Amino acid sequence: MLSIVVEHIFLLVIVTLISVLQNAFFATKVEREGKEHNNKTAFERVSCANRNCMDSYPTFLAVMWCAGLCLNQAPAAFAGIIYLVARQKYFVGYMGQTSQSTPGYLFGKRVLAFLILMCIVGIFNFLLLRYFSSDYKDTLEMITNAASALLLIP
Amino acid sequence: MLSIVVEHIFLLVIVTLISVLQNAFFATKVEREGKEHNNKTAFERVSCANRNCMDSYPTFLAVMWCAGLCLNQAPAAFAGIIYLVARQKYFVGYMGQTSQSTPGYLFGKRVLAFLILMCIVGIFNFLLLRYFSSDYKDTLEMITNAASALLLIP
Amino acid sequence: MLSIVVEHIFLLVIVTLISVLQNAFFATKVEREGKEHNNKTAFERVSCANRNCMDSYPTFLAVMWCAGLCLNQAPAAFAGIIYLVARQKYFVGYMGQTSQSTPGYLFGKRVLAFLILMCIVGIFNFLLLRYFSSDYKDTLEMITNAASALLLIP
Repeated sequence: MLSIVVEHIFLLVIVTLISVLQNAFFATKVEREGKEHNNKTAFERVSCANRNCMDSYPTFLAVMWCAGLCLNQAPAAFAGIIYLVARQKYFVGYMGQTSQSTPGYLFGKRVLAFLILMCIVGIFNFLLLRYFSSDYKDTLEMITNAASALLLIP
Repeated sequence: MLSIVVEHIFLLVIVTLISVLQNAFFATKVEREGKEHNNKTAFERVSCANRNCMDSYPTFLAVMWCAGLCLNQAPAAFAGIIYLVARQKYFVGYMGQTSQSTPGYLFGKRVLAFLILMCIVGIFNFLLLRYFSSDYKDTLEMITNAASALLLIP
Repeated sequence: MLSIVVEHIFLLVIVTLISVLQNAFFATKVEREGKEHNNKTAFERVSCANRNCMDSYPTFLAVMWCAGLCLNQAPAAFAGIIYLVARQKYFVGYMGQTSQSTPGYLFGKRVLAFLILMCIVGIFNFLLLRYFSSDYKDTLEMITNAASALLLIP
């Protein structure tokens, strides 16, 4: 039974693993800065960047998995990868301001909006299929696959 | 294959989406307060309320999905909606005290306890079904559906 | 349909429930310390320990569920239990330092690395099965079951 399930989620699992490794990278950075006690502001900055990333991490995971399960895993995993790249840029470029107005933060918003849209489209498609027996899944998957490429535009 | 899965989780996905939109609303509030630098305590309050909500968010998601998968999605999603309403009340009514003794916090506890109970009942039912081949699922679903209405009592 | 799913995840659900109860225990500790206003440093310590535990909680959940879904739930749930014991030790033994160098933190790292390895092995196995039709799942499950016992070594 499980191999059927794995077939539909393995890309999501891979993205989740990459995000976990990225979390570990962030945590190592924070730990290393915490041990060098001569630089207080640098630790504050890294710690704040890490907290901002961690705060939105459950939201990102939930939205990516919902989008992947409801519609199709390929565009969801692709959007997830882009989110991770944006998060990396955000973490590296974080300059210690409390106002989160770096480009990375805005980029993350767009990816999350795309994933939320995928969820909504997937659920609407399911409801259409259930009550009107009209299935647009193939069309929708093609459209989302094409639309996910638009995320690459900076 | 996936449409069978979606049929059993689409209510949970909808609640998750609403919770994500609520998270975005909270984050926007914090960002807006952070930009107005003339009011320091208001930012502290909003930021603390946001952190309290975010800290319990993965717990809530995990419990809701487990309850929905183990027993039935309808009462789990209903309890999730009530939790989100309680969280909204908590966020709005948060007055900056570090002790979390607002009514909203207590309300959240009750909903989580109900969801944990649903998980336990669902697993017990599965184990009964497996080892004694006695299935009480229909009765249990009826009872949990009725019991979830009790969460509306303030 | 759902009882088939529950059969493959019920151990993971049980571990998730235990972790939620542990979270509730941590939150109660923080709340109790917050109400006793005469001891400021104790509250700081407990609050910091709680935040460190909560920060890594979504990561742990994501990795455990992925490992359980991709390969086998029994070793994943076992590793999860060990992680929870390590977290408990970490929380109790946390002495207020910001550098997270207690034994508990290192222990958690090893469990997470084991779970990540399980995910990778599971996905490789799935890809082998798909493209080369060679299934090593039984062998892998036996190896991971044996390997999970190694986590008990302190």
